[in-house]
Amino acid sequence: MDLLNRELPAYFTTYMRRYAQLIASHGLNVRPGQLVQVSTEVYHRSFIALLVEELYLRGAKYVHVDFADPAISRTRILRSNAEYLGDTPAFFSDKYHELVESGAANLKVLGPEKPDHLVDLDPHAVNTVRKGAYRAAKHFYTEGIEKSKVHWCVVAAATPAWAQRIFPTLGEQDAELRLWEQIFKICRVDHDDFMARWEAHNDLLHRRASALSSLGIEELHFQGPGTDLRVGLSSKAIFKGGSDSTPTGDRFEPNIPTEECFTTPDWRRTNGTVAATRPFYVNGTLVKGLLITFKNGEISHFSCDEGEAAFKTYTESDEGSKRLGEVALVGTDSPIFMSGLVFQEILYDENAACHIALGSAYRGCLKNGASLSDEECRELGCNISSVHTDIMISSEEVDVDARLLNGERVRLIERGAWVGSFSVK
Amino acid sequence: MDLLNRELPAYFTTYMRRYAQLIASHGLNVRPGQLVQVSTEVYHRSFIALLVEELYLRGAKYVHVDFADPAISRTRILRSNAEYLGDTPAFFSDKYHELVESGAANLKVLGPEKPDHLVDLDPHAVNTVRKGAYRAAKHFYTEGIEKSKVHWCVVAAATPAWAQRIFPTLGEQDAELRLWEQIFKICRVDHDDFMARWEAHNDLLHRRASALSSLGIEELHFQGPGTDLRVGLSSKAIFKGGSDSTPTGDRFEPNIPTEECFTTPDWRRTNGTVAATRPFYVNGTLVKGLLITFKNGEISHFSCDEGEAAFKTYTESDEGSKRLGEVALVGTDSPIFMSGLVFQEILYDENAACHIALGSAYRGCLKNGASLSDEECRELGCNISSVHTDIMISSEEVDVDARLLNGERVRLIERGAWVGSFSVK
Repeated sequence: MDLLNRELPAYFTTYMRRYAQLIASHGLNVRPGQLVQVSTEVYHRSFIALLVEELYLRGAKYVHVDFADPAISRTRILRSNAEYLGDTPAFFSDKYHELVESGAANLKVLGPEKPDHLVDLDPHAVNTVRKGAYRAAKHFYTEGIEKSKVHWCVVAAATPAWAQRIFPTLGEQDAELRLWEQIFKICRVDHDDFMARWEAHNDLLHRRASALSSLGIEELHFQGPGTDLRVGLSSKAIFKGGSDSTPTGDRFEPNIPTEECFTTPDWRRTNGTVAATRPFYVNGTLVKGLLITFKNGEISHFSCDEGEAAFKTYTESDEGSKRLGEVALVGTDSPIFMSGLVFQEILYDENAACHIALGSAYRGCLKNGASLSDEECRELGCNISSVHTDIMISSEEVDVDARLLNGERVRLIERGAWVGSFSVK
Repeated sequence: MDLLNRELPAYFTTYMRRYAQLIASHGLNVRPGQLVQVSTEVYHRSFIALLVEELYLRGAKYVHVDFADPAISRTRILRSNAEYLGDTPAFFSDKYHELVESGAANLKVLGPEKPDHLVDLDPHAVNTVRKGAYRAAKHFYTEGIEKSKVHWCVVAAATPAWAQRIFPTLGEQDAELRLWEQIFKICRVDHDDFMARWEAHNDLLHRRASALSSLGIEELHFQGPGTDLRVGLSSKAIFKGGSDSTPTGDRFEPNIPTEECFTTPDWRRTNGTVAATRPFYVNGTLVKGLLITFKNGEISHFSCDEGEAAFKTYTESDEGSKRLGEVALVGTDSPIFMSGLVFQEILYDENAACHIALGSAYRGCLKNGASLSDEECRELGCNISSVHTDIMISSEEVDVDARLLNGERVRLIERGAWVGSFSVK
């Protein structure tokens, strides 16, 4: 089953090539002589081959493609001696060190071939493997990603199983094709001037984030059906959106697509009730119809239509898993919102609506955040946790106001849409 | 196109599972807690998943599967800046060091998805990439493989394109199935007692190699149509066949299948003419109808029906590429010979007939060979070269005699078949 070896609409190849170019250029911004790592699943081999061509054309020194196979991950958890499940060879850490120290470009291509392949397995065993993989890559996350020492970008490619979750009435091949078409549209590669559109879109996100940062927001106030939530921000909070930069000034786009302006809240000042406006996954289980009440920063009560047990377990992961680590603003001008689809993949769904996250906060959204100690983080209400899950909380019935440090109240989003200067493209 | 997801004959799954067990047990002889690396192409993912299960069931600590994609290798050579083609990231060497230092088990699963994917490319660029990969893995080859510090095993799995080379009149799927059936038969997994058969086969190869080593052979003499070739052996020559052992005494089987007893000749004492009895590949080009004349150890003349230019270029690779580096004895009891097929894959074809190799010699086939310096090698006529190509030279019309140091003459192979005590199973 290989999409790219099938007879496809003529425009398809063009859009696929553009998508690869967008990732290599705007996403990773590969520099001549740069080492590049691509992590993905074997299923995506045809798209990856196209992408690797673009990476070499931009002057990559070496493109290392790390192909994972979900069947192998599953087999390990089922058949390995339990005592070895947390182990990873030392050369994994060596690799991550080299990626960081050489300032490599790192691409993750999401899109699960088998979305549920670990769901029926012992969650403890699954977690042990995940923790082991995290330990091996810790230097990469803390130094490479958090301090932006590497170029990094996360994108998605369609698979039949993922596509059929979104289009359950379609056959495998039709669903996959339809999902690719959505990806192309949302990522703007259905336009000849796609690269210019991304530059303009990026400028818009930068302008919005900069304007939000300079407003002096003390509290965000979300209001809508089932929602009356206040989220406090520390005076050090800054908003980010669009491309990021390495310490040496190289731009890269951490997510394609991206539609959000996000910051780190003071978790202690979260109060009120909030209704999730879209389903989301928690450790592989879909949670629907979530309602949460926060009191002095922690969840005091919640209910779900579906997935309540999984959500409960999640909130008990650690001290920080029932506290906010992120608040992000997304308007209804988002092409993901406009698609009317629920992608059941957070890279897409979090960019369809305003969202909050339960779990770890991004220190880069506090002034001088990269150098903050854990203790200083605690003093600022910057949440620390080993988990992070986004929950979408806006729709065309939700308004978002900012209460400023000077006492003023400014409307940011009305009926889901950016207003005032924030709406100007 | 995934063989294992198709409707297959009932026995097929059984044989495939046995083949995986044979590789994990007899081939790699994986020890509890051992690191395992599997190198292969993405095409083989279904077979690899089965194999990984057997590796974990034997107690492997971690199985690292390194999936290569021929499309990516090709793209690199076509699109990379030429100055980077010889580069490999440092973490490749780190990995090979860890594999050697930890005494890992290493499996190579051959079987090209696209046998000709590099044939039309600039041979200089292809060679630069190969040399770079070799440099990164040099410690692994010189310490791990040559000194048997790692367990290692080379096997093959079917692909449609490879299978259609052997069965050109069959469709892709039928050819692939037919090739798998040949692999199963040749590897004895079509018998319930396959593991015992391999033990017995291995004992036979050990006995033959040991008897050959203790004969005191001064010269091997091959005679047949177009062939009257004498190959001298040094007094330090020993024959090897079947399983090898690590310095700590762990057995492993370097090749599955294996039918040969081989040694390192004194290249200087090669004289006469020899006719290749099977076609073979030189840098991706098939050579047919080769006739060579050796004079004082070097090729003095040759002719081919096909592939003459490629063979000529090969013999000019370096000083050692026109001299012998191996001589191996295989009888017509080999199931590969009995299949009547030419596999166009050296792992199989070299085990169908006696063969010589032009190029580098294996030092392990000389007494205390691992500790010999290059200078000592030269004194013993142990050939040094960066290349090695096997050429099959026996058939049912070829006899092989040994002239011993004591002047006696012993017939080893008559009309292609082992004779006397060598034929006893």
